[in-house]
Amino acid sequence: MFVRNAWYVAAWDHEIGRNMLRRIMLDEPVVLFRTVDGKCVALEDRCCHRQAPLSMGKLVGNIVQCPYHGLQFDPSGKCVKIPSQDRIPPTAKVKAYPLVERNHWIWLWMGDPAKADPDLIEDFHWLDDPKWGFGGNYLHVEANYLLLVENLLDTTHLPFLHPESLGTDAFARSELEVTRDGDRIQVARWLMDKSPAPFHKQMGDFPDGMNVDRWQIAHFAPPSFVKLDVGSAPAGAGMRTANDRGSRWMNMWNLNAITPETEKTAHYFFAQAYNFKLDQKWISDMLRTQIRDIFLQDMTMVKAQQENMDLGPSPVVNLAQDKAWVAMRQIVDRLVKEEQQQAKAA
Amino acid sequence: MFVRNAWYVAAWDHEIGRNMLRRIMLDEPVVLFRTVDGKCVALEDRCCHRQAPLSMGKLVGNIVQCPYHGLQFDPSGKCVKIPSQDRIPPTAKVKAYPLVERNHWIWLWMGDPAKADPDLIEDFHWLDDPKWGFGGNYLHVEANYLLLVENLLDTTHLPFLHPESLGTDAFARSELEVTRDGDRIQVARWLMDKSPAPFHKQMGDFPDGMNVDRWQIAHFAPPSFVKLDVGSAPAGAGMRTANDRGSRWMNMWNLNAITPETEKTAHYFFAQAYNFKLDQKWISDMLRTQIRDIFLQDMTMVKAQQENMDLGPSPVVNLAQDKAWVAMRQIVDRLVKEEQQQAKAA
Amino acid sequence: MFVRNAWYVAAWDHEIGRNMLRRIMLDEPVVLFRTVDGKCVALEDRCCHRQAPLSMGKLVGNIVQCPYHGLQFDPSGKCVKIPSQDRIPPTAKVKAYPLVERNHWIWLWMGDPAKADPDLIEDFHWLDDPKWGFGGNYLHVEANYLLLVENLLDTTHLPFLHPESLGTDAFARSELEVTRDGDRIQVARWLMDKSPAPFHKQMGDFPDGMNVDRWQIAHFAPPSFVKLDVGSAPAGAGMRTANDRGSRWMNMWNLNAITPETEKTAHYFFAQAYNFKLDQKWISDMLRTQIRDIFLQDMTMVKAQQENMDLGPSPVVNLAQDKAWVAMRQIVDRLVKEEQQQAKAA
Repeated sequence: MFVRNAWYVAAWDHEIGRNMLRRIMLDEPVVLFRTVDGKCVALEDRCCHRQAPLSMGKLVGNIVQCPYHGLQFDPSGKCVKIPSQDRIPPTAKVKAYPLVERNHWIWLWMGDPAKADPDLIEDFHWLDDPKWGFGGNYLHVEANYLLLVENLLDTTHLPFLHPESLGTDAFARSELEVTRDGDRIQVARWLMDKSPAPFHKQMGDFPDGMNVDRWQIAHFAPPSFVKLDVGSAPAGAGMRTANDRGSRWMNMWNLNAITPETEKTAHYFFAQAYNFKLDQKWISDMLRTQIRDIFLQDMTMVKAQQENMDLGPSPVVNLAQDKAWVAMRQIVDRLVKEEQQQAKAA
Repeated sequence: MFVRNAWYVAAWDHEIGRNMLRRIMLDEPVVLFRTVDGKCVALEDRCCHRQAPLSMGKLVGNIVQCPYHGLQFDPSGKCVKIPSQDRIPPTAKVKAYPLVERNHWIWLWMGDPAKADPDLIEDFHWLDDPKWGFGGNYLHVEANYLLLVENLLDTTHLPFLHPESLGTDAFARSELEVTRDGDRIQVARWLMDKSPAPFHKQMGDFPDGMNVDRWQIAHFAPPSFVKLDVGSAPAGAGMRTANDRGSRWMNMWNLNAITPETEKTAHYFFAQAYNFKLDQKWISDMLRTQIRDIFLQDMTMVKAQQENMDLGPSPVVNLAQDKAWVAMRQIVDRLVKEEQQQAKAA
Repeated sequence: MFVRNAWYVAAWDHEIGRNMLRRIMLDEPVVLFRTVDGKCVALEDRCCHRQAPLSMGKLVGNIVQCPYHGLQFDPSGKCVKIPSQDRIPPTAKVKAYPLVERNHWIWLWMGDPAKADPDLIEDFHWLDDPKWGFGGNYLHVEANYLLLVENLLDTTHLPFLHPESLGTDAFARSELEVTRDGDRIQVARWLMDKSPAPFHKQMGDFPDGMNVDRWQIAHFAPPSFVKLDVGSAPAGAGMRTANDRGSRWMNMWNLNAITPETEKTAHYFFAQAYNFKLDQKWISDMLRTQIRDIFLQDMTMVKAQQENMDLGPSPVVNLAQDKAWVAMRQIVDRLVKEEQQQAKAA
């Protein structure tokens, strides 16, 4: 079950142009394209007449023409032409998804359009901020989307699943600080007064011998967003309570948006944003590739979990480290149930 | 659900010989072969003993020997030998399907054999008439069989799905005449007093400057036969009410028999019959290939429709042009329900 | 449904080492490995924390470390380390399967560990007896495991499914002697006072012109073991009532252990044991290959049966030759039902 009254990422902005892209989201077929003015549009990819995928048809200006019988739909989903007759029945329309293009992502509201408030779109301003660079990518997930949200809220798996790249287990042993703000969860780990990690030292230009305070803070927002704030600052610089870490010291944000495709598959949009050496393009390329390679290990894991789960139910033991994920699942479950109750009441 | 008390095409005659062909029809496994005298036989392809496919066994004269334990069945489905014992229980038999070889097709009755009347076989005499040539073919359909019946009853999709080959939209805009005779449906479109289509002009030897009346008339017969009568005659020749169009002027019949395999797959047998230049064999070869290539576009479409339908139910808008298909679905639904009620009563 | 309170073969002994082998048995994921002392261990291949397959992790001495969060389990399945916390909850454990390594096979008890009595392990001593050689192998079965048990209890299929290799139909026509001892079934066929089969003559060193008594005796033990005793002795040597056929004359035991993987797949472990020319290694190699090739024909058959069964239920006729298989299915069905009733009562 999915939370439908929510904004989800449908695509990277550069994926959408004057061709039509089909993408299944929350078990619904969606077609994405740009108008002649470059405005992005998302319609149901299933003609109201005989369920043909509009994405197999063609764009005539801003009009989508069905590949099968030539019905034409405008960007609002309204049928504006039926070749075989003059009368257009008022029911002749396909769903048009409220859409916002923001921070290089195409955002779709998958539920009741009347509730689609752009202010509810999760903040990913780093992707659009001149003080930040980023490397971004996409992966298809062969598992339930919440397995990946769990994975991202979890720093304890890093030394085990990613020993070559993120292999230090210092974070795994450090104390976990979980805080909750409504349906938002924050999971923080700090390593205080230690010598900096080699990459942090190099990118932050910390002088030899200087100790740093290093942080890793995961922010969850429902239904399936996880932002990881990682960085280092000179020991004693007071970063633990600061609100401006990224504006002053070496900082990266690992930004993750997961969109359910079906109950057992998902779309994964992610980027690594950074605030250093913005003039050096190789950093963006390196981060894009590096993060993708690490996340491919996670893809293997969540797929293997899904396979074990498909064999049948088995008991699960929750640990102290799971506090955030357990809360995350409770939040998503509650939101789904609330929507179902509202749907029944209506 | 399928109409079982009906004749369906199982194969082209040339597909069946002294080898055994397995073909699933209406969710039942069938094995087809010819006796030593060339008579075609269809038995259940599932031994009554341990469900082995007889088609993996061998033909001994007119006898089918099971590949597993050597039980032998005669063309009536009766077990005539059990290697391990002398007594043959009366229940030892496999279903034998009433079969008629007619018009180059092998026809099977899939329901109660007592009701199998060869007079009920749909007329496809064009395939066996010296005044006609034809090019025929077979395709496997990855969609419910009725999606393809809809497709064939529908001329309005031609300019959109087949723009390079059948691309004129004049027919799509012309008036639709739907007539009903019991469970048979006829859908006619006429283009009166126009210059002939290039292929029609060439094959009909119409002189330069002569206008023609052109017709396209689809005939549906349940459960899943569609015959398209297309042709041209000199304008004013009175073809609209004539019964002998094919004997006098340029005429083609596109002949289609669709047999459900499962709920989501089907067998598609089709041919293009023509009444011109019968001494020129290249026309038959060209039509066989040309029609196959066009129908491959339809295969892509019905498969895409099926994929969208598999994502879940969605509302459907019927248009004026759909009158014939809506009637077709009502007829097939009614026939299925009638059979189920008869089965319950019995 | 499966009999769970039973010993099943999980692997050949040489398959298991200091790597970890995942194998699904009775719908449960199992990981197999050896301790540093070479002792074989079988644990649930699904971490109790987040269902990750332990087989993707690593062995640290005798400890299995989960690939995801590094939880460590000892060979008893008990969690002995959680990297992120000191306290180990008593529920933190994975199932450990009672395991016995015997006769070159790894035996697992899939049900209630309290009932796991090694004396219940089926006797396959031929694989471990200096008076016998053997050639063994493994095949994956794409069918319900009982279809293969039926196949092995059945000599009547040999001349039909294996005409080139086991093609004489003399056995198929000889009288069947079925005897029952509790839940064990014995199916015997004898050919008395005939010239020996070429392979029997060669391997048994029977002189020219000597006639032999030849036997084929299948022994079934639940849930899914079949042992075939085949051999020849000089006619009149009284083998029919002897208990020491294998110690005196040319004898082979075809040994079969079938383990359900899912309802529609299985693991098949088999060997051909022989008591002649033990110093000639080529015999072992030849039998391993020869038996595998014959059994591949059986794999094709049981898969085809499964495909026909998947199309829907169809009536089945039992013959006199099926007496043993029918009894076998009744025994297995009864054992499954008894377990389910005990589970309900408890």
